[in-house]
Amino acid sequence: MKIIGIDPGLRNMGWGVIAVDGPRLRHVANGIIHSEAGELGPRLVVLYRGLCAVIAEHAPTAAAVEQTFVNKDAVGTLKLGQARGIALLAPAEAGIEIGEYAPNAVKKSVVGVGHAAKEQIQHMVRFMLPGVELAGPDAADALAIAICHAHHLQGRALRIKIST
Amino acid sequence: MKIIGIDPGLRNMGWGVIAVDGPRLRHVANGIIHSEAGELGPRLVVLYRGLCAVIAEHAPTAAAVEQTFVNKDAVGTLKLGQARGIALLAPAEAGIEIGEYAPNAVKKSVVGVGHAAKEQIQHMVRFMLPGVELAGPDAADALAIAICHAHHLQGRALRIKIST
Repeated sequence: MKIIGIDPGLRNMGWGVIAVDGPRLRHVANGIIHSEAGELGPRLVVLYRGLCAVIAEHAPTAAAVEQTFVNKDAVGTLKLGQARGIALLAPAEAGIEIGEYAPNAVKKSVVGVGHAAKEQIQHMVRFMLPGVELAGPDAADALAIAICHAHHLQGRALRIKIST
Repeated sequence: MKIIGIDPGLRNMGWGVIAVDGPRLRHVANGIIHSEAGELGPRLVVLYRGLCAVIAEHAPTAAAVEQTFVNKDAVGTLKLGQARGIALLAPAEAGIEIGEYAPNAVKKSVVGVGHAAKEQIQHMVRFMLPGVELAGPDAADALAIAICHAHHLQGRALRIKIST
């Protein structure tokens, strides 16, 4: 099973793909799709085509997207929402089911606590995926989201095993 | 010249196409793309494919999208942002330039004042596009956005004419 994690952002859309084999996780690829300032429509096209290309190349079978909003800033929330729409559309268009996780759930799953610094997340992602080279903080976040989804699915598989 | 106006919404995405011939406006088509409650990814796919189908059928040469946000409600703003991302992506993917207008600018352009009730907008849209049958309030809003963009482009054409 391959999972793509996506950290939505209008300027930097982080993505990371991991392979899951039972309890083992393996890094496949990670990167950042960058859209330069300018007209919103063409920026969303860059993000959408970039994500579609990543999905076509790595053929993930599951996806996970962070569930964020900026509470104090409506303009920022709207911008993020527009990028997030693209982050959800690309895997859904490919028929991939999408898990959504709050930032605290991702941090808890990777670092062990709900409030963790960016550096802690990068440290744990490097520890859990030996040999990974991170394209940047947004790519590390995306891998963390993928790891969180893997833990969630592994937990579900375990529960199914126990109950049958 | 054909203009598509889009009123973004996650549940109801209104759209309306008008033809512009000099100072004359003519109704071409209008409708609402509906996405049922459920997983967000598949809902966005319904909206995206619906809009792409409308654009393929009517081949507009310009697009206009309302520039809304819900100031008091971050969850609502995020939802709207996701739908708005799709509303911008579909025409941008087709290479169509997109005008963005605040709700007050749309109302002012159609009704003459920045604060107008839904009924007033529908009334004026019916008056300006004789014979139109409206698919619903969201489709009327979409036609109003298209009319606003037409007025904007006509004003620009007039200015170019005067200055040359």
